[in-house]
Amino acid sequence: MRPRKNLNVAMIGYGFMGRAHSNAFHQVGHFCECSYNLALKVICGRNQPQLQTMATQWGWNEVASDWESVVTRKDIDVIDICTPNYLHTPIAIAAAHAGKIVLCEKPLAVSIEAAEQMAEAAEKVPTLVWFNYRRVPAIALAKKLIEDGKLGQIYHYRATYLQSWGAEPQGSDAWRFKPSEAGSGAMGDLLSHSIDLALMLNGPIAEVSALMQTFAPNREVDDAVLMLARFANGSVGSFEATRYAIGCRNRNYFEIHGAKGAIRFDLEDMNRLHVFEGGDTMEVQGSHNVLVTGPSHPYTSQFWPPGHILGYEHTFTFTLADFLQSLERHEIFHANFQDAVNVERVMHGVEESARMKSWTRTTAGR
Amino acid sequence: MRPRKNLNVAMIGYGFMGRAHSNAFHQVGHFCECSYNLALKVICGRNQPQLQTMATQWGWNEVASDWESVVTRKDIDVIDICTPNYLHTPIAIAAAHAGKIVLCEKPLAVSIEAAEQMAEAAEKVPTLVWFNYRRVPAIALAKKLIEDGKLGQIYHYRATYLQSWGAEPQGSDAWRFKPSEAGSGAMGDLLSHSIDLALMLNGPIAEVSALMQTFAPNREVDDAVLMLARFANGSVGSFEATRYAIGCRNRNYFEIHGAKGAIRFDLEDMNRLHVFEGGDTMEVQGSHNVLVTGPSHPYTSQFWPPGHILGYEHTFTFTLADFLQSLERHEIFHANFQDAVNVERVMHGVEESARMKSWTRTTAGR
Amino acid sequence: MRPRKNLNVAMIGYGFMGRAHSNAFHQVGHFCECSYNLALKVICGRNQPQLQTMATQWGWNEVASDWESVVTRKDIDVIDICTPNYLHTPIAIAAAHAGKIVLCEKPLAVSIEAAEQMAEAAEKVPTLVWFNYRRVPAIALAKKLIEDGKLGQIYHYRATYLQSWGAEPQGSDAWRFKPSEAGSGAMGDLLSHSIDLALMLNGPIAEVSALMQTFAPNREVDDAVLMLARFANGSVGSFEATRYAIGCRNRNYFEIHGAKGAIRFDLEDMNRLHVFEGGDTMEVQGSHNVLVTGPSHPYTSQFWPPGHILGYEHTFTFTLADFLQSLERHEIFHANFQDAVNVERVMHGVEESARMKSWTRTTAGR
Amino acid sequence: MRPRKNLNVAMIGYGFMGRAHSNAFHQVGHFCECSYNLALKVICGRNQPQLQTMATQWGWNEVASDWESVVTRKDIDVIDICTPNYLHTPIAIAAAHAGKIVLCEKPLAVSIEAAEQMAEAAEKVPTLVWFNYRRVPAIALAKKLIEDGKLGQIYHYRATYLQSWGAEPQGSDAWRFKPSEAGSGAMGDLLSHSIDLALMLNGPIAEVSALMQTFAPNREVDDAVLMLARFANGSVGSFEATRYAIGCRNRNYFEIHGAKGAIRFDLEDMNRLHVFEGGDTMEVQGSHNVLVTGPSHPYTSQFWPPGHILGYEHTFTFTLADFLQSLERHEIFHANFQDAVNVERVMHGVEESARMKSWTRTTAGR
Repeated sequence: MRPRKNLNVAMIGYGFMGRAHSNAFHQVGHFCECSYNLALKVICGRNQPQLQTMATQWGWNEVASDWESVVTRKDIDVIDICTPNYLHTPIAIAAAHAGKIVLCEKPLAVSIEAAEQMAEAAEKVPTLVWFNYRRVPAIALAKKLIEDGKLGQIYHYRATYLQSWGAEPQGSDAWRFKPSEAGSGAMGDLLSHSIDLALMLNGPIAEVSALMQTFAPNREVDDAVLMLARFANGSVGSFEATRYAIGCRNRNYFEIHGAKGAIRFDLEDMNRLHVFEGGDTMEVQGSHNVLVTGPSHPYTSQFWPPGHILGYEHTFTFTLADFLQSLERHEIFHANFQDAVNVERVMHGVEESARMKSWTRTTAGR
Repeated sequence: MRPRKNLNVAMIGYGFMGRAHSNAFHQVGHFCECSYNLALKVICGRNQPQLQTMATQWGWNEVASDWESVVTRKDIDVIDICTPNYLHTPIAIAAAHAGKIVLCEKPLAVSIEAAEQMAEAAEKVPTLVWFNYRRVPAIALAKKLIEDGKLGQIYHYRATYLQSWGAEPQGSDAWRFKPSEAGSGAMGDLLSHSIDLALMLNGPIAEVSALMQTFAPNREVDDAVLMLARFANGSVGSFEATRYAIGCRNRNYFEIHGAKGAIRFDLEDMNRLHVFEGGDTMEVQGSHNVLVTGPSHPYTSQFWPPGHILGYEHTFTFTLADFLQSLERHEIFHANFQDAVNVERVMHGVEESARMKSWTRTTAGR
Repeated sequence: MRPRKNLNVAMIGYGFMGRAHSNAFHQVGHFCECSYNLALKVICGRNQPQLQTMATQWGWNEVASDWESVVTRKDIDVIDICTPNYLHTPIAIAAAHAGKIVLCEKPLAVSIEAAEQMAEAAEKVPTLVWFNYRRVPAIALAKKLIEDGKLGQIYHYRATYLQSWGAEPQGSDAWRFKPSEAGSGAMGDLLSHSIDLALMLNGPIAEVSALMQTFAPNREVDDAVLMLARFANGSVGSFEATRYAIGCRNRNYFEIHGAKGAIRFDLEDMNRLHVFEGGDTMEVQGSHNVLVTGPSHPYTSQFWPPGHILGYEHTFTFTLADFLQSLERHEIFHANFQDAVNVERVMHGVEESARMKSWTRTTAGR
Repeated sequence: MRPRKNLNVAMIGYGFMGRAHSNAFHQVGHFCECSYNLALKVICGRNQPQLQTMATQWGWNEVASDWESVVTRKDIDVIDICTPNYLHTPIAIAAAHAGKIVLCEKPLAVSIEAAEQMAEAAEKVPTLVWFNYRRVPAIALAKKLIEDGKLGQIYHYRATYLQSWGAEPQGSDAWRFKPSEAGSGAMGDLLSHSIDLALMLNGPIAEVSALMQTFAPNREVDDAVLMLARFANGSVGSFEATRYAIGCRNRNYFEIHGAKGAIRFDLEDMNRLHVFEGGDTMEVQGSHNVLVTGPSHPYTSQFWPPGHILGYEHTFTFTLADFLQSLERHEIFHANFQDAVNVERVMHGVEESARMKSWTRTTAGR
């Protein structure tokens, strides 16, 4: 093994995503080939006791409370942003201006304008947006099968992202219900993932017809969002994201039907991909129930032997590994800020369509 | 057992549905309590050799080629219509005018106007529309659970009806692609079932936004139809019907999420209902995989012992049994012509919405 | 269609199986090509009111109470036996001596000796034993795949037949718990099916080690039976049948692993076969979830279109159709009395092994 | 957080299990409350280049080649053994004699005698055997449900452990096929897990009847092992472990039927437990499909939010966390060396039964 180059990381924010990112920084070198050594230098947040606990538990060297001074520190190479959504913009722009590598949670921003400003500010620095589900091995396999032409011309794309906690949010979720801090509700939180995967797997979305719905009294963000879509490739799509689907913990689901084959995925069963191959002999045609943990599957060859289930958190590990590899090779990484702007454009179209009760053209994914 | 009253049946048409209805006429007395004896008197159609074969195989006494004379025969009590859609209207109106009991395949007609004329003509006679899926035992159980309040306030209704033969239709399906004979494609054929179930399970649909799509070149009917819906009860819905979903033979699927519970159904696994109960102890909460074949389930108590799978055709048998019971008791049967008009109204809204690219109010389900 | 030859049927017994057989007699001509017309001539049993109800409901011409006179009636061609097990032997022997075609429920007899006497008596007449699961389309497909070499050399055969009513039997099941009338408990009732399928699919069983268990106090027949087996082809097997598996209504399950592929079946999901093909591309290897309802599948081509679920009772219809075809063609039908004797031999070995607590050689399936 | 006490770890061996253990040493402090800090001090093995790579990748301070000097080092507190099986015994005994805490992979030894010597030598030191599946959250939930009486009296225990690589072993598996180094094949490797879980969940096994089978030519260990069992609690069991089940990567499966409920688990779907509750209302009885990732489930409350899948490796993390907690509290940890001896006793009975072709009493689980 060659000696690894050092990258000093500062993380702003320390919630659920803070833990997921911290884990990735630790694990990427264990499970992936990696030319960099990530040093967990400083973690930054407002609640100092909680921050100190987090730092101790996850091995961050220092704590800090003022992100503005952190993002300009000379000894920091990477700024990782996992704050509430509305803070993504000022932090990312400052970090980019300071020449840092910028990693940012999704959705990128609370408005299309803010997102575009971020992308513009970060044009010269490497960026990553944590659309981590792109690196679920089963989804990466889906992408490969589509690219290999196994599905043929695509006719249908169908995505739902169903969660159940909308009626009983926890205190730590409070910011998620403030339009000024979250931007939106189920749309930015859940639908953004579905849109990002759709753009990756099926290309640009041309136009949408959407509805947004709030079930809880006195709530200002959407609890559910539904949309019909026409893709640039001629296929039609149906999307739904909700926090009011009792019994569904994290059902990020999609299904794609093409002329030659079909695939189906459910995040609650994330180690499997269901693949229908029109080329199979008629008498044994049926969805293949593929346990995506083998040496011929994306990401898993360096992991455990086939049949050993991978956990949610490794989607972050693989995202980071690919990012570091693209850094090493001076290649463009996806999803970057521009990719996330494309997602924001579709979401902007969704909001406009829902407000106007009409079909709205989007310009995403170009 | 009391002696059964006799009902003489004439069936117009003899395709796939002709076989399904013939089977029901034979089987209803075997599996259900039944006050009537159904005599398979005459089967009417255009191709005499095929008709004769059908009559011999299924035990019809006579064959006939002229439906106009059949519907006025004095010795006929029941006219059962399973012709291509466009013939439903003249036959049903003539039969109703002759005072016959009228059974008719779905969709009721090729236009909302024709459907309304049929309903008006048949106001005084008992009518049945073969929305057979209402009597799938699992769907009847779903209805009971909803009526018992097990799901609480409904938030989400999600239905897909996916088939795969659109790219390779068979000769006998030719009329299904002619707008003048079928009225529409996937909409009347598949979506009509989903709408009927939605109206039955979740009440009236207030407005819809829809798209219709034809994938095959030079085809004049829709291959796929997608719609968003707002129900009168405040819930939101998503619907999709297509003949271009490779690998899906007959996936008539729906899922309903309420405040207290959820249910899920798939016709390709029609003996099961998946039921989530919010009242279950937290540690064992999860969808119940209910094999709907037991003595406490609708329709199945007089059938085989629990655990013995029921086939598709019994949805017709149960429909007929319920109809005969309502006839005996002088009660109104559902789905009748008026129920089918409600389905047509939603479909009319779908077409208008797709054409206008806007949300369209429907008046269905009143 | 050629004119059908007439066969007059007398059925002895009228319980659950009586209904299943009556249904098959009615339905075989509807769904299968068939050179015979089956006339439901006489039904024979002890409880005359129940018998009369059954005759009316299922269209039997006459009722009778004395099987001995029925089996010798000149106007009867076929004797169908669905009495409690201990009566199979005298009725079948008398019917065979009278030259009748003999159809008999399983298990064939209450002892190996009785079974062998029946087979000997019936050597000259066509016989059928209602091992109906051989004609589940998915199981017939399994047989075809094995015969086509799709599984290669077989290593493992694993069967369970799980039911749940052992702790709460119904009154009508009383005879099933009397050794003199049933012969055995779960063994004859459930394991016999698993053994018959194993002999059909995987060939002769060379030796077994078994245990039999009675959970209910004061019960004289087995509630559960487990066995290990060595097949003549070198594969090893595991079998279990029980009436004490709460939650399992009728889970007749088997799984077969070979050098090149594997199959899995569950009667509670009887329209599906899970097929693993070692020849699939590595990245999409996984069990095919095959909905066995298509034109390329056994028995279903003359049924409903693909995707329409078949019910339990058609396993009897298909059994009868195959039998009538073999009758027409003067071919040997399986499962016949000799096949059922082979099952009895394995069960005899099971009992001996359980009693002696040792491995026991069987001579079945030669 | 209180300051953590330091424990210096030396690991002997560095294969698949070496990676799994290294990961647990790193992760236990991240995901679990933990009073100890584990220092990855030294890793010991024979192939120095591979060992060096492993040390670099996983953060071991030193490498060593001579286990005999490592186990007596004063600066080492914990010896973790993940060598081929035959080396467990001398290393564990030496480590125990040196007063170290001893962690050891399963199966404990290559013979019952060796296992008993190890247990005797380690009587005074804390021991852990990596029967990691005890800490799958779903299995821990199963244990809780059984202890809470949710299943009532147990009737049936059914376990299979199916893998597929037996026909195509990799070079690194070579020792697994040498009787002197592995002790046995599928039995020690796979069946040992099933037995350990059975003893934990259902108590002692009284007697067994087993068969062992080798499919590969010239192989000296078992490729498959099947056994029937009678448990001390009156239930009956069926076990099967094989490396010749094509399509099954790591299907460690069990199913338990009791008087009041049933549970079902499959390691390939390890985040779920299927729970049947006899107390559910009849009409909605059916296996609950429980996604075991919630705050009311074992181990997962400190992990990700509900619905986020856990990976295989955390079974080691949780095992270690529980061990460290028992160490802190001076409580006895399970599975310890004595628990593993109980597994060895059953395996000894299996071998004897297979050789003698008779039922064999075991004395396990006392």
